[in-house]
Amino acid sequence: MNEIFIGIDLGGTNIKVGCFDSDIKLICKTATPTHADMGPEAVTDKMAQTAEKLLADAGLSLQDVPSVGLGSPGPAIYSEGIIESATNLPKFKNTPFRDMLSERLGKPVVFENDANVACWGEYAVGAGKDVEDMVFFTLGTGIGGGIINNGKLVHGCDDNAAELGHIIIYPDGRLCNCGQKGCVEAYASANATAKRAAEAIEAGAQSSLKKVLDEKGEITCKDVYQHLKAGDKLAKQITDETAEALALVCINMLHTTEPKRIVFAGGMIAAGDILLNRIKDYFNEHIWSLRKEPVEICFATLGEDAGIIGAAALAKQAHDEGKFNSG
Amino acid sequence: MNEIFIGIDLGGTNIKVGCFDSDIKLICKTATPTHADMGPEAVTDKMAQTAEKLLADAGLSLQDVPSVGLGSPGPAIYSEGIIESATNLPKFKNTPFRDMLSERLGKPVVFENDANVACWGEYAVGAGKDVEDMVFFTLGTGIGGGIINNGKLVHGCDDNAAELGHIIIYPDGRLCNCGQKGCVEAYASANATAKRAAEAIEAGAQSSLKKVLDEKGEITCKDVYQHLKAGDKLAKQITDETAEALALVCINMLHTTEPKRIVFAGGMIAAGDILLNRIKDYFNEHIWSLRKEPVEICFATLGEDAGIIGAAALAKQAHDEGKFNSG
Repeated sequence: MNEIFIGIDLGGTNIKVGCFDSDIKLICKTATPTHADMGPEAVTDKMAQTAEKLLADAGLSLQDVPSVGLGSPGPAIYSEGIIESATNLPKFKNTPFRDMLSERLGKPVVFENDANVACWGEYAVGAGKDVEDMVFFTLGTGIGGGIINNGKLVHGCDDNAAELGHIIIYPDGRLCNCGQKGCVEAYASANATAKRAAEAIEAGAQSSLKKVLDEKGEITCKDVYQHLKAGDKLAKQITDETAEALALVCINMLHTTEPKRIVFAGGMIAAGDILLNRIKDYFNEHIWSLRKEPVEICFATLGEDAGIIGAAALAKQAHDEGKFNSG
Repeated sequence: MNEIFIGIDLGGTNIKVGCFDSDIKLICKTATPTHADMGPEAVTDKMAQTAEKLLADAGLSLQDVPSVGLGSPGPAIYSEGIIESATNLPKFKNTPFRDMLSERLGKPVVFENDANVACWGEYAVGAGKDVEDMVFFTLGTGIGGGIINNGKLVHGCDDNAAELGHIIIYPDGRLCNCGQKGCVEAYASANATAKRAAEAIEAGAQSSLKKVLDEKGEITCKDVYQHLKAGDKLAKQITDETAEALALVCINMLHTTEPKRIVFAGGMIAAGDILLNRIKDYFNEHIWSLRKEPVEICFATLGEDAGIIGAAALAKQAHDEGKFNSG
């Protein structure tokens, strides 16, 4: 009988669930609203029901599922499966979330930070599938990160490693939501990129984006890249600043865990090669001259399914390594 | 029969050799000039002879030595035991150094970067002996680094991980010897600290260090800390800048591999608590407010023996793990 692995990607807005074969090929997937305000038991039940229905609709059985992977926003004590508190899951307080889902489904559950799950997905079957050392950034509202060292996720002493958006690149620079100044997230997240454009226009910069700001009352990162492609000078400057910030953090990661590949994911990579090439340009401009570095900088390949793919791949790995046998 | 592990710390100036018991307690040690200009075969022979004599003088036998650890400056292909080229070992070109020593002594040899060796020494029996996640900095002529993640040294994709002195903290800042601008090494190494003091005096700053500069023609890092302790204001400002640079890199490492402990070593830690407390002050000033971080910042405890201790500890670990059995 073929083994089926379930990957669940829990977000503040939606729960995504996917069923995968033992090669982590997608069989079927679905999504449903989270309704986090209903509290942890209702969310657990929703995840389980969604998974059960997905399996049934595809003619599959829960009996063929050895393990389930769950990616969740933090902060959490991932090694113990407990959500202490999470910004997007307000009713979760010291919730033993992994064990709740495990008991509800009667299956062992691997519980992991959402950025780490997406990182693992890219490592297992995506942009990093042929390397053993990888660094991963998600460029969204904020910047999340993941580090693979010698084929393993780096968790750190307290499950909070790879908060790569909060690497300080410009001391005394822009204030970040975390309270630090000059974090890469304060410059190069999708939100920060859009915000810098709006600030520049408000400060008097000439740009075709001004009309967008006047009409919509805001600028999105997507607007910036659309106007960049149309030749707007401010959009180019804003993109350059984003790319330079990302290049600096690439250099710092190179000198830290020395990845073979650095993978960028998230909505912002829709900007395409214009952004990627500028990151590489700045990397080459700022990197040392001691040796030619073998690191490759690229974009993720799994898109929005990275979370469910990574969760399923982690479930399979833990099963294959016999992690559930000892309790 | 008790096992004896030999640790060798190869420097451009001296070769240090130590014999250790299986608890990595020092039995005896010695040092001899490297004479790197004699070339790799002569240096190999010198290391072997020194180790053999050290054992004989202590009434020990090479027969009781299961393995030898060798720490060496790089860059090198450590996994293959080859020194491609090393600044301080000019006649070494694509030298299969590990195998040369192994054949000469008839013992398996573990070969590792000198900063990693010292890091492993502190991890095994020094300032990091009770943690599994550690980051290590040597503050000397330059700044070297080592990272322990989950009880293992981080090597990276190409054996050049943990070049922590070249983390960029001030983009477009001081030019580093590596060709980058704003590396922490360009601010906080012993050399950079002394150089910043001399530059400030040459630019007109008032300081009791001016007399030193006038008389000796140079200022050392030791001078800076002596004058700091005597109350000199410029020495305090220079020390503060060093401490702030180190604090920033501590924050960045916290958000990367999340060590439980960050250990500073090297001649500069002779500055004592004045320096350590300023690093902690700046860390607390710049760190995020999202959570209280459990990281501990401290000084190394093994002093100049860290290299031979770490090399012996690596030799023992590889022996215990059966790494030499597969050839």
